[in-house]
Amino acid sequence: MEIDVLAENRKIADENHELLKRNGIKSIDVMGSIGSGKTALIERIASEMIKKGKRPAAIAGDVAGQDDYNRFRSLGIPAININTGKECHLDAHLISHALEKLDLESIDFLFIENVGNLVCPADFPLGTDKRLVVISVTEGDDMVRKHPLIFSVADVAALNKIDLVPYLDVDPQRITDDYQKITKNKTLHLISVKTGAGIPDLLKDLEVDF
Amino acid sequence: MEIDVLAENRKIADENHELLKRNGIKSIDVMGSIGSGKTALIERIASEMIKKGKRPAAIAGDVAGQDDYNRFRSLGIPAININTGKECHLDAHLISHALEKLDLESIDFLFIENVGNLVCPADFPLGTDKRLVVISVTEGDDMVRKHPLIFSVADVAALNKIDLVPYLDVDPQRITDDYQKITKNKTLHLISVKTGAGIPDLLKDLEVDF
Repeated sequence: MEIDVLAENRKIADENHELLKRNGIKSIDVMGSIGSGKTALIERIASEMIKKGKRPAAIAGDVAGQDDYNRFRSLGIPAININTGKECHLDAHLISHALEKLDLESIDFLFIENVGNLVCPADFPLGTDKRLVVISVTEGDDMVRKHPLIFSVADVAALNKIDLVPYLDVDPQRITDDYQKITKNKTLHLISVKTGAGIPDLLKDLEVDF
Repeated sequence: MEIDVLAENRKIADENHELLKRNGIKSIDVMGSIGSGKTALIERIASEMIKKGKRPAAIAGDVAGQDDYNRFRSLGIPAININTGKECHLDAHLISHALEKLDLESIDFLFIENVGNLVCPADFPLGTDKRLVVISVTEGDDMVRKHPLIFSVADVAALNKIDLVPYLDVDPQRITDDYQKITKNKTLHLISVKTGAGIPDLLKDLEVDF
């Protein structure tokens, strides 16, 4: 059963990717725990894009509520809200319906914010160019070791809120070591959405230029 | 399909509860996001119990790894590690097998630490006396509104790391208001596992005395 579900998801993800490419839209799937700063990171990058004349859009995935959707709408960008009800991840099928509702010709870039956790989204690619996982120093320094799958499937990873390190018992080097062990020495980006630290290098790695 | 799975889980949960009660063991299911401080809270309460001559034990649930299990073993208490592989929650069946491996006659209290997220554990009671959900001020102030189900099924809820509030843009009152709306005015316990603030009242609400 599971194998079919995953294969079907990959098929629809490929179709989503084709559709986005055909419309010249770059895209990122932003995964990570609740509170890791996914929405704030998207807000920061999208605001920069708007200043430079780019036209970003966002899909907000949550079990319930429309907090993130409202935040994206406040930026003045096209946004779609997906409430999954009880599901702990988005899937390619949900995204295909969201894409039907967006005016793809008026968009250059699509952010998809996945449901907040480090378990479920791993197995369900959505058809984006890149998959990013965002974690935070407030989550403790064992979260990479506890969730190897999502870090191995993600193209890029960022450790957010490094400005809070002085107030916490957390060692960013330990998290980096765990990440490099799992990914054969890829870079874990130490960032602060609040101060802007590390964001330019993160964007380079995501191949986002504007 | 889902209905059967949930009904079967409830049946086994009832059996677990009977078995624990027959052995005079009180129990808590500790749910909450990764990094909310579930393990640290259990360590703190269990250490107090040991000092008072009580005999706690713990079951650690994680997708992968044995970090939490190792921390419980360091306390010198009986512990069982459950790695769920890809599942984002424990279930009553997994717990029934863990109970087979514990010497129930030498235990007074059982902590079960669920897999870290606010979505999946909600629907799967394990057979404990109480279900506790632990969140942290570092997760932002919309996490209750985003996850109404887990807060409505949990008997007790705690907002941890209140010592970090001065360094964050977060409003504990807003979180409390959301929680009280969902639960018809139950108390959200503002705690700090680090400083000990709020723990005595939390234990009263959990009906844990020692």
